[in-house]
Amino acid sequence: MSAPSTPVDTVDPGGLAAALSALREGAPLVQCLTNVVVAQWTANTLLAAGASPVMVDNPQEARACAGVAGGVLVNVGTPQEETAAAMTEAVAGAAEAGTPWVLDPVGAGALAWRTRIAHDLLGRHAPAVIRGNASEILALDGGTGGKGVEGVDAAEDAMPAATALAHELGCVVAVSGRVDHVTDGERVVRVSNGSPLLTKVTGAGCALGALMAGFTAVVADRLVAATAATAVFTLAAEAAQRAARGPGSFAVALLDELDRLQPAAVADGVRLS
Amino acid sequence: MSAPSTPVDTVDPGGLAAALSALREGAPLVQCLTNVVVAQWTANTLLAAGASPVMVDNPQEARACAGVAGGVLVNVGTPQEETAAAMTEAVAGAAEAGTPWVLDPVGAGALAWRTRIAHDLLGRHAPAVIRGNASEILALDGGTGGKGVEGVDAAEDAMPAATALAHELGCVVAVSGRVDHVTDGERVVRVSNGSPLLTKVTGAGCALGALMAGFTAVVADRLVAATAATAVFTLAAEAAQRAARGPGSFAVALLDELDRLQPAAVADGVRLS
Amino acid sequence: MSAPSTPVDTVDPGGLAAALSALREGAPLVQCLTNVVVAQWTANTLLAAGASPVMVDNPQEARACAGVAGGVLVNVGTPQEETAAAMTEAVAGAAEAGTPWVLDPVGAGALAWRTRIAHDLLGRHAPAVIRGNASEILALDGGTGGKGVEGVDAAEDAMPAATALAHELGCVVAVSGRVDHVTDGERVVRVSNGSPLLTKVTGAGCALGALMAGFTAVVADRLVAATAATAVFTLAAEAAQRAARGPGSFAVALLDELDRLQPAAVADGVRLS
Repeated sequence: MSAPSTPVDTVDPGGLAAALSALREGAPLVQCLTNVVVAQWTANTLLAAGASPVMVDNPQEARACAGVAGGVLVNVGTPQEETAAAMTEAVAGAAEAGTPWVLDPVGAGALAWRTRIAHDLLGRHAPAVIRGNASEILALDGGTGGKGVEGVDAAEDAMPAATALAHELGCVVAVSGRVDHVTDGERVVRVSNGSPLLTKVTGAGCALGALMAGFTAVVADRLVAATAATAVFTLAAEAAQRAARGPGSFAVALLDELDRLQPAAVADGVRLS
Repeated sequence: MSAPSTPVDTVDPGGLAAALSALREGAPLVQCLTNVVVAQWTANTLLAAGASPVMVDNPQEARACAGVAGGVLVNVGTPQEETAAAMTEAVAGAAEAGTPWVLDPVGAGALAWRTRIAHDLLGRHAPAVIRGNASEILALDGGTGGKGVEGVDAAEDAMPAATALAHELGCVVAVSGRVDHVTDGERVVRVSNGSPLLTKVTGAGCALGALMAGFTAVVADRLVAATAATAVFTLAAEAAQRAARGPGSFAVALLDELDRLQPAAVADGVRLS
Repeated sequence: MSAPSTPVDTVDPGGLAAALSALREGAPLVQCLTNVVVAQWTANTLLAAGASPVMVDNPQEARACAGVAGGVLVNVGTPQEETAAAMTEAVAGAAEAGTPWVLDPVGAGALAWRTRIAHDLLGRHAPAVIRGNASEILALDGGTGGKGVEGVDAAEDAMPAATALAHELGCVVAVSGRVDHVTDGERVVRVSNGSPLLTKVTGAGCALGALMAGFTAVVADRLVAATAATAVFTLAAEAAQRAARGPGSFAVALLDELDRLQPAAVADGVRLS
């Protein structure tokens, strides 16, 4: 897969719209090593947005796949010995090929084994993006404040940890919350779109992490990539909420709206600060 | 997680309504070790009803997680060596911490390995609730009448076995069927709400078992907990059926209706005998 | 489970309608060893169409289950050591009992380990049907043209390979594409129903493979069985597209329409050539 080719160097509404156009045009192959709870939902989210999911999470094939993918998602939501080994292989393959990879440290801090897995992966090869809630980001930076897979800290509380991680690893850190925060250690972008129904659908954050892997495949500036994924996902969520009666119909409508979302609507609707 | 705090000592409509209020207020952490087929659906069911799912099913983390969860679901629908080992760990953690756990013996009687797994778990630490169809409950009581994962016996046919199991283990046994039967060995409650479309959605019973684990976290009387889960799930199913064109839209509407269901509607709508 | 009992010996619209009637009447047990991404969707597809899914994919139980199932699906979409071993067991059980099995070689050609798994299974016992996209069928016939899990070759390009495989193994080969092609090595049937939205839902092809396993349980002529599954699935997709706003609501409506589809509508709507 070719290197990211769309230069978008400022995080402004037009750049995020261009990123969505690039995703649709490139339809990048996104390898997902994710948890069994959200695998279908994640693949359908990527398809709806315009990317091409490939859910290869076994140790035999994960490394080669990461070598040809446009982006790789590693989500530690339901690790087992074999899928954890596959994550190591995928990160090795990403390192060899220069494929950007995204870490979603689901439950880090609250659960010990996956916290070690996440730290081990980070020590092998720096990711393009880390996406988590405040608790998870605090835990990755050495904090012990993890309070479960559903974060209870506000995103802004994790920004010192996010900035430190971004500097240490040379990556982007995205902290999900009522207002999403994205930083590369220097710049900080806040996206205040979204819907409270996102907290009633399992794997909303997981799907967002997968979209970030998709955008890193087509956008060179990883701050823009992570922000574009956030804007696209949360704008689709706003539209979905208008069509929904509850969390079931919301999740369905979110896929419809991801498919329907136009780049111009991203530029018009995103609320950055 | 604190001990169940809502005393509801009679199984009457008002008590079931109070149980739903307690679930919404407590938003208990429900650890699910369940089959890969229904994992997403189960998590979304718990979220819609008001609980907080955490899908930790690896041997490294399952025991510690059961120590902090409000309730634990063990569903043997798609066992593998590693997830089966995690079930043993989770039950050990539940025993140490006094966390109520629910066994859903999917396919017991029809398939040999999982039947042994279920018996082994029951021998380690008594569950709060066993939920299954008639065939599965008959199989757990030593019967050989298992006829597959879809039960063909009527729930009432399994009540002698259910009563015997409840006495032997000191637990509640819930037998799903056209009319759901729940017993603690002394009292028997029948709930005759529901929809035939529940048989056209994979994992309807599995999601009900997860809800039971959620209610055991907030209701001390386990007969009330299991009955409340049954009432809430089957009442939401009745409302969903009115909105549905078929099994696809029914499953979506069921999540919407679980989210919308008010305690007063439980008290008004449940049909107990 | 009894042997297939509905003789349908020509592939004409009436025969496909009769096959759907046979599926509804027989409600055959379909054992699925499939990937974790599509397991729920596959089970719900089978239930909506009228079959009885049983998702047994562990090595301890897979062989015995295949002995009592009406049909077996083996889909290599997310293999792990244990589920791959279960596939070998299931095929052995199918061979012993004469149960028809269907191979869905997801990603064959593009990924090495699963390609070996698929070849190994084919060498043990001939399947009733192989269902794949053009790339996958080319890879199974020894080609190296695999371009990923999403095929990029047109179905007709794979027909020489499909015909060769059908002859070699004595099975039916179904090649999915804009026009679906099904051959037993002598006869070729083309079905030109469907919807472009099928490419925006993960596991559309996987669900079709499962339906083929269901139809092989009730229809003796495997060309008819595979064609009936294709007609039923793609006709339901056409109806679903009319009700859909996008890929999310399309997938939901597809289950509704599978449930609602009548045999007469199959006879009226299928476009064969």
